[in-house]
Amino acid sequence: MANQKMQNWLYKRASLTPNRIAFITEEGQCTFAELNKRAVQMAYRFGTLGIKKGDHIAILAKNNLRSVLVINALHYIGAVIIFLNNRLTSYELLWQIKDSDAKMLIYDPTYSDKVNNLKKYNQLLDFFSYDELSDIKQTKVPLQFEIDLESNEAIIYTSGTTGYPKGVMLTYGNHWWSAIASSLNLGLYHEDCWLACVPIYHVSGLSILMRGLIYGIPVVLQESFNPELVNYAIFKRDVTIVSVVSAMLTNLLEDLGTSNYPEKFRCMLLGGGPVPYSLLQECKAHRVPVFQTYGMTETASQIATLAPEYMLKKMGSAGKALFPVQLKIENNEIPTKPGEVGEIVVKGPNVTKGYYNRPEQTEKTIQDGWLYTGDIGYFDEDGFLYILDRRTDLIISGGENVYPAEIETVLLSHEAIEDAGVTGIKHEKWGEVPVAFVKIRDGRNVNEKQIIAFCEKRLARYKVPVSVYFVNYIPRNASKKLLRRKLLELI
Amino acid sequence: MANQKMQNWLYKRASLTPNRIAFITEEGQCTFAELNKRAVQMAYRFGTLGIKKGDHIAILAKNNLRSVLVINALHYIGAVIIFLNNRLTSYELLWQIKDSDAKMLIYDPTYSDKVNNLKKYNQLLDFFSYDELSDIKQTKVPLQFEIDLESNEAIIYTSGTTGYPKGVMLTYGNHWWSAIASSLNLGLYHEDCWLACVPIYHVSGLSILMRGLIYGIPVVLQESFNPELVNYAIFKRDVTIVSVVSAMLTNLLEDLGTSNYPEKFRCMLLGGGPVPYSLLQECKAHRVPVFQTYGMTETASQIATLAPEYMLKKMGSAGKALFPVQLKIENNEIPTKPGEVGEIVVKGPNVTKGYYNRPEQTEKTIQDGWLYTGDIGYFDEDGFLYILDRRTDLIISGGENVYPAEIETVLLSHEAIEDAGVTGIKHEKWGEVPVAFVKIRDGRNVNEKQIIAFCEKRLARYKVPVSVYFVNYIPRNASKKLLRRKLLELI
Repeated sequence: MANQKMQNWLYKRASLTPNRIAFITEEGQCTFAELNKRAVQMAYRFGTLGIKKGDHIAILAKNNLRSVLVINALHYIGAVIIFLNNRLTSYELLWQIKDSDAKMLIYDPTYSDKVNNLKKYNQLLDFFSYDELSDIKQTKVPLQFEIDLESNEAIIYTSGTTGYPKGVMLTYGNHWWSAIASSLNLGLYHEDCWLACVPIYHVSGLSILMRGLIYGIPVVLQESFNPELVNYAIFKRDVTIVSVVSAMLTNLLEDLGTSNYPEKFRCMLLGGGPVPYSLLQECKAHRVPVFQTYGMTETASQIATLAPEYMLKKMGSAGKALFPVQLKIENNEIPTKPGEVGEIVVKGPNVTKGYYNRPEQTEKTIQDGWLYTGDIGYFDEDGFLYILDRRTDLIISGGENVYPAEIETVLLSHEAIEDAGVTGIKHEKWGEVPVAFVKIRDGRNVNEKQIIAFCEKRLARYKVPVSVYFVNYIPRNASKKLLRRKLLELI
Repeated sequence: MANQKMQNWLYKRASLTPNRIAFITEEGQCTFAELNKRAVQMAYRFGTLGIKKGDHIAILAKNNLRSVLVINALHYIGAVIIFLNNRLTSYELLWQIKDSDAKMLIYDPTYSDKVNNLKKYNQLLDFFSYDELSDIKQTKVPLQFEIDLESNEAIIYTSGTTGYPKGVMLTYGNHWWSAIASSLNLGLYHEDCWLACVPIYHVSGLSILMRGLIYGIPVVLQESFNPELVNYAIFKRDVTIVSVVSAMLTNLLEDLGTSNYPEKFRCMLLGGGPVPYSLLQECKAHRVPVFQTYGMTETASQIATLAPEYMLKKMGSAGKALFPVQLKIENNEIPTKPGEVGEIVVKGPNVTKGYYNRPEQTEKTIQDGWLYTGDIGYFDEDGFLYILDRRTDLIISGGENVYPAEIETVLLSHEAIEDAGVTGIKHEKWGEVPVAFVKIRDGRNVNEKQIIAFCEKRLARYKVPVSVYFVNYIPRNASKKLLRRKLLELI
């Protein structure tokens, strides 16, 4: 099993199930056989460009078929893909390109302006837009029809709440085991169809592309999140699984109105951090099959997910570690008791080998095979995981730990509040105190005093925000994950 | 990924899905939590008996819950299980026990007489019946809550058409990958329930036990094959998948009569060699969801299976190599062209590391990761595998290769013939010629001349049996696989 090899996943799918639909996008759909044929042609174009096995190639991709082709063609070459977040500034992009040792940037023409700006600053790098690629002739270079599960498929930079971002190395094996772990929990149905409206440059979206290949199911790939289009696909495209975060789920429910999803829609996979209880209640009322999940770039997506039979009984929990995976909670290196809060530590074949060119960070984060996530949570008496917060966002006030997510959950349960974020500010007496940022629903009205009174009823004194700022938006990244560190910039 | 570790599968299941039903037997049913509790108790009894990690322990097991407990308890200890075929003679059992270095034999009390006979000949071995085990006190020895996928779970002796049997080593990883490979083809449904009426001392039955744990689905375990009980379980126990060989399938269809299986019964997994076309036609007429498969002990069960969408289009084919697996056909070390017959060669993480204490046999059989199966087949133009025969059963007649299975398929398509077997006998002029053995259906009537005339219409001259023997039964092993070498004993 050491150095486990396997045939290229697209190649194998094109051999096993050539006529099944692989991708459905706004441009149309294609089968595994068609996708494979076009990916091989694209790989031969990359051959002409001199891209070789082991090269680091950065891509600025949109959620579309051409990105899927580029990704699969790079797999055939054996190149490592640096997935760049298309919302980054030029400064941030240049930093990641340099840090990852990328020798080329391949980009969707949508980002031409951004890339033209990059060209001024990095004249060593090669740049090719998708449009330019189609003009390149094909050279029959050797392709990697067999992959080594230990080799890197991608490097993805984590948002990094402090300091510079770190490049998480993800192997084919990480993706493989993540897909298998997920299927052992969610099941795998012949009629399955997974919708990706989360970006493919994040592990949330990329993992869906991988699953499509491994499972042999169609992936509906949408350019961005639009609740109407997602709901349309669920009703009209026979989508059975959608990956979302809670902000997206709220929008989907709003758009859904009084309807219910069709029977065959079987999984709303809900990740991206703590979820307001009120939202879960609403899902229950609408019989939305929510599977709360917990994962991160370092675990190639899900590492814990609530099993279907506990969907209602353990609402708010992210479940238990998936079948091939282990998870524990530690407090000062000692495993916690049920109910006791500590740091979440994970181990398993879907866990990254480390950060690219960051041996110290890697050693600090991964000890004896266990990855210290920096996330905070606890187990209940039955061993179910509840996520509280990111350690790096922890507010320590008068010696007490304050978890912003707990306060946000309370704020979001207020009927007039549409979105909310909490962070800490310095305080002479207590060290830090929490402050709240809220976006009020259209047509609603509430003042600071009322919100504080609402919190006081539901939270211990030291957890109540000292101030409430009324804002037009709450800063979230492309995956709709709350960017707490950006809240203070709003003031 | 090297030395991949995972939590003990039963332990993990008892943690993830404690209240799901794990096994349904004639004695009753039990959940994963109950099974786990009792397996741990049994492991502590083994602790008292001094069984340690790495010990080789032989078992003479029936398909029942106590066997399942013993197997899982031995997993917890980390012992390697020698699965003995309960149809073997004392002589054969003693040989396998000695060859496998087993230090103890644990047996179902059904086999007391057989074991008492063994005791006379091997006084070094410890013997414990299931009844005796329940009286043994428990000692809290260290249990293997974590397993190494590279470590041996079992040794199973192959029927060995020539010479002495060989002990196939099967690791946890072999079982794991076999289960995953199967699920990527058959799917994995929350309502799945797999029926095992094939013996658990064969890989066909053992693999179902492993899948139950890995998938978290109930296994209906039946003591032996009885078509009425199998059909009852399909109709009344909500069984969705059954593993059979063609002789069993014939009986199931006879018992089924004019009924059809319920919609939720989704897979009749049909292994154990070539299948008469007439049987497949009958399945088609009855809308039985047959998945033809190909596998052997050395591949921890299935290695190729027909994908669902090709069930009817490629009737008679065993499909293609499962997702994590590779398969090729070679003739004198050269890969064959479509339609060209050769030896089937396989590679993948479910393939055994080799034969216990048989480095030469291992080296001969597994070359550069590829296992030479000795089985004969060909690919059609679309890459679908068709199995012809076991090489060791090949009849070479006048320089032409004659495949007994091909002749049997023809014989079985005769409406008066219930079962058939073909083998070669020496012939002065042609070297070897085929002879047929047939069992005639009750109330039917046909003579040798008519059968030969029937074959002459359907087969090239050199393939037509020179003689037809009318017999009361066709020799088959516990898995109903035809024992061609025993045919001549019938004359």
